Amino acid sequence: MHVSGKQPMSDIEIAQNAEVLPIQQVAEKIGLYEDDIEYYGKYKAKISYEKIKELQKNKDGKLILVTSINPTPAGEGKSTVTVGLGDALSKLGKKTVIALREPSLGPTMGIKGGATGGGRAQVLPMEDINLHFTGDLHAITTANNALAALLDNHMQQGNKLRIDQRRVVWKRAVDLNDRALREVVVGLGGPAQGIPREDGFDITVASEIMAVLCLSTDLEDLKRRLSRMVIAYDLDKKPVTVKDLGVQGALALLLKDALKPNLVQTIEHTPAIIHGGPFANIAHGCNSIMATKTAAKMGDFVVTEAGFGADLGAEKFLHIKSRNAGLQPDAVVIVATIRALKMHGGVPKNELTHENIMALEKGLENLKKHTETIAAFGLPFVVAINKFSADTESEVSLLEKWCDKHSIPVALTEVWEKGGAGGISLAEKVLHVIESDKRQFNYLYDLSDSLEEKIRTIVQQVYGGKDVEFSVAALKQLKEFEDQGWGNLPVCMAKTQYSLSDDPSKLGRPEDFIIHVRELKPKLGAGFIVALTGEMMTMPGLPKEPAANHMDVDERGRAIGLF
Amino acid sequence: MHVSGKQPMSDIEIAQNAEVLPIQQVAEKIGLYEDDIEYYGKYKAKISYEKIKELQKNKDGKLILVTSINPTPAGEGKSTVTVGLGDALSKLGKKTVIALREPSLGPTMGIKGGATGGGRAQVLPMEDINLHFTGDLHAITTANNALAALLDNHMQQGNKLRIDQRRVVWKRAVDLNDRALREVVVGLGGPAQGIPREDGFDITVASEIMAVLCLSTDLEDLKRRLSRMVIAYDLDKKPVTVKDLGVQGALALLLKDALKPNLVQTIEHTPAIIHGGPFANIAHGCNSIMATKTAAKMGDFVVTEAGFGADLGAEKFLHIKSRNAGLQPDAVVIVATIRALKMHGGVPKNELTHENIMALEKGLENLKKHTETIAAFGLPFVVAINKFSADTESEVSLLEKWCDKHSIPVALTEVWEKGGAGGISLAEKVLHVIESDKRQFNYLYDLSDSLEEKIRTIVQQVYGGKDVEFSVAALKQLKEFEDQGWGNLPVCMAKTQYSLSDDPSKLGRPEDFIIHVRELKPKLGAGFIVALTGEMMTMPGLPKEPAANHMDVDERGRAIGLF
Repeated sequence: MHVSGKQPMSDIEIAQNAEVLPIQQVAEKIGLYEDDIEYYGKYKAKISYEKIKELQKNKDGKLILVTSINPTPAGEGKSTVTVGLGDALSKLGKKTVIALREPSLGPTMGIKGGATGGGRAQVLPMEDINLHFTGDLHAITTANNALAALLDNHMQQGNKLRIDQRRVVWKRAVDLNDRALREVVVGLGGPAQGIPREDGFDITVASEIMAVLCLSTDLEDLKRRLSRMVIAYDLDKKPVTVKDLGVQGALALLLKDALKPNLVQTIEHTPAIIHGGPFANIAHGCNSIMATKTAAKMGDFVVTEAGFGADLGAEKFLHIKSRNAGLQPDAVVIVATIRALKMHGGVPKNELTHENIMALEKGLENLKKHTETIAAFGLPFVVAINKFSADTESEVSLLEKWCDKHSIPVALTEVWEKGGAGGISLAEKVLHVIESDKRQFNYLYDLSDSLEEKIRTIVQQVYGGKDVEFSVAALKQLKEFEDQGWGNLPVCMAKTQYSLSDDPSKLGRPEDFIIHVRELKPKLGAGFIVALTGEMMTMPGLPKEPAANHMDVDERGRAIGLF
Repeated sequence: MHVSGKQPMSDIEIAQNAEVLPIQQVAEKIGLYEDDIEYYGKYKAKISYEKIKELQKNKDGKLILVTSINPTPAGEGKSTVTVGLGDALSKLGKKTVIALREPSLGPTMGIKGGATGGGRAQVLPMEDINLHFTGDLHAITTANNALAALLDNHMQQGNKLRIDQRRVVWKRAVDLNDRALREVVVGLGGPAQGIPREDGFDITVASEIMAVLCLSTDLEDLKRRLSRMVIAYDLDKKPVTVKDLGVQGALALLLKDALKPNLVQTIEHTPAIIHGGPFANIAHGCNSIMATKTAAKMGDFVVTEAGFGADLGAEKFLHIKSRNAGLQPDAVVIVATIRALKMHGGVPKNELTHENIMALEKGLENLKKHTETIAAFGLPFVVAINKFSADTESEVSLLEKWCDKHSIPVALTEVWEKGGAGGISLAEKVLHVIESDKRQFNYLYDLSDSLEEKIRTIVQQVYGGKDVEFSVAALKQLKEFEDQGWGNLPVCMAKTQYSLSDDPSKLGRPEDFIIHVRELKPKLGAGFIVALTGEMMTMPGLPKEPAANHMDVDERGRAIGLF
């Protein structure tokens, strides 16, 4: 919950007390009528393939990407600003569509805190969106595990493909935080129960199928991408793909509705498309191309976000998603809070309510680096400071002077407390940079660069590091992957979100650091090569006191204790 | 597929070529309007809790239970007859609602053959119903696995309840056929990854949560039942329940929409409620009480079915579901085919197309036993013979004479080929036995009987066995369970469906056999004690050539190769 003090209601209370329009009324605002949508209850709908196809003739609206400084435990409120900015643009009379990621149930059950914005800047119905929503994640879990079952069954029933049971790389998935499933042994109990082997479960959002769904442009593209996924290696160490197993059709069938974007609304009835949510650490962390492109075909302005800070989310949005979608942002918003900047300046979480000018000044270096990165991509940007009641006048004044000195456009926002009205000044500044049209977009690397060059470019130009160091295993893989013909794929960096470096304790703007690449993973369905730096958690655990312990539902089916 | 020869189209082709009405038109036939239903696409809806509550004041319609002889690989077509009988009653001007179980995805991916009827007697949209439908099974999978994750997390984070990791009885679940997950070890990888222990996955329909959902009368009852589920034993061997863990609220929250019955339609637009589908071997195998009761409040006639043959499905329907619902059938339909009866008479599957009077006569003994059982419950019945083109005139004539001799009302049906029109004579006979009102319903055992007496009663009066033999372990459990105060619960028999005995090779009507009870399982949430006879499979495997290998989806999202 926000630390404002003026709003005594929790997010769920605000959401449950808000007026929700029947979804067809929201749909009509952006030209979607009866046959264009498929209802999921009264307040959620999917957009039909026919309509999406028909929309392709439209011009694209202006695209605004919301990113942030490196996240801290203090909270930045990127989703809240994304929703609030969308509502503010609507208030200014702009036909706006918001495009967000859909949340995973795992964190919902674990740690209090939703993924649907906060305060007056939320999407509705927040209960449904944070629980099963329209079933997309369940469809992905099912497709992921059907593939695993079909793979194990293939080995059990003769193993025509000569799959090496020690080299199965396809893992199972659940949409939950469940540490006990990180490392398991399956196939125990004798010859009739399958082949014993080491296995593990990822959280569903870390499944390559989630990344595939988010990067697909239609059902045929989805099927092509599914076909290419590497699931194991055979006894000659040759990659085995879904196409070799011949089940891409069945997987695509399981995903046929999950690929359709979901339409909902904000508290202020701005249309919001919430669709897809790949893990931002080992995948690209952006909502689906179908969502963003469909939003761009319907709205004059689209506000969307990318996971974690600009070093991870924005970089991947631009190098991976934009490339696949043929769609670049017209402006970028970089979200920060004074609290979080003070943490980057060295203040521990329990002392954030005290004024600390020195720490704020030091922490601003983190923000500085991200503005430089966005500028290097040739994109105009605005810094959005999400205001908290504990922010002091001196702190706000320092921040404004600092931005002025560096010619950085900045806006204070109060969208949590005031909804769209709290984001008007941000919206106006964003409109201004878009109208000035100084965009000169360029990628920082070319696809024809080697994998090693691509990684070095990101390390030096995006993270501000000195160099990259590859493990012996990774060096061997670099060669192997180039030999396999995978060298022309973009790179998806897997790095801690807390630091520009690969050491989560190095806050602010570390310098002269080396990034250590431990291992590469081919994600040919998603169409990128993951470069792992340090240990990446693909299955979170539950805390000592899970949020689930305080959840309930009343006799009419209303959620209690959900945030 | 049916072996009629006259219908060249597959079930999915018939379904895709059938006219489907917008679901609100079907809803209106039974008095459901705009605010009473929640759409899931254009052709599926859930019925709201408010409407269900309001309906309680209505009188119950007449309830018709469809059951069958012991199933054989020849196929009996129980779901097809259920749908066809509903359509036939509609054709006769009766306000009829069909209540069916919802299918699991596991078998769909494994073995060709749907759970939505066949031919002209199907429910629509069959593709959706056989895939994710309205997400009920996914919600159950999620609740099942959230409970497992919360349990493992409790042990990892201090284990205040002193749970014995060797005595965790709550298993994980996937809605797939996946033999490699039958026996697994979880929690590997060191102290940070949890406590290593033996575990296993059941198919979702075998989860106690599915049985709980099917036997709950509302959300509060659901929560009470979830609370009572035994999930482990502590170091003193005392049962640990969901209530001890304190997460019944979170589980109920995950199930809040899954508990609402789903409304769809038959090819002939008869309303059908499809909701819940617990495994018929280790659970009670009937659709939900919410579905059947809601159907009974809206229709003058309700046609529903129970899993497997009358020895399992009907017995459990009457002793478990009826008792919980306070709702007994007004008539029973026992489905058989001449093909299947010949198998019970000893004919192998590949010789079923040859006439064999002797085998048919012998196989009829199986049917005879089931008619006696239904009569013992004091219920009127009609035998429905699902006609196949290979049935010869002599065979049909023998069957009719046999029924006449035993005063058994019988009707030949052709619902697969002709829909409701093919079931008119069956419908008329069913109406006749209902109007004669000779029902004198009685349970075969009282809840106050001991667990041992209950089991013996079922073995002798329903299976026609000589006696029951308990293993040493089961004898010990009988005493323990009575001491725990669980002796007043009904018994849910887990027995092979293929034979009246516990030996699947004993077809027809075996005599003088002993049933061996190996183990008991307390299912306090469902509210019954499972008695296991022989090995029960709670996680099926995939065949050598899974149906998934031939599935696909076209660019518009239409299923290919799904049955």
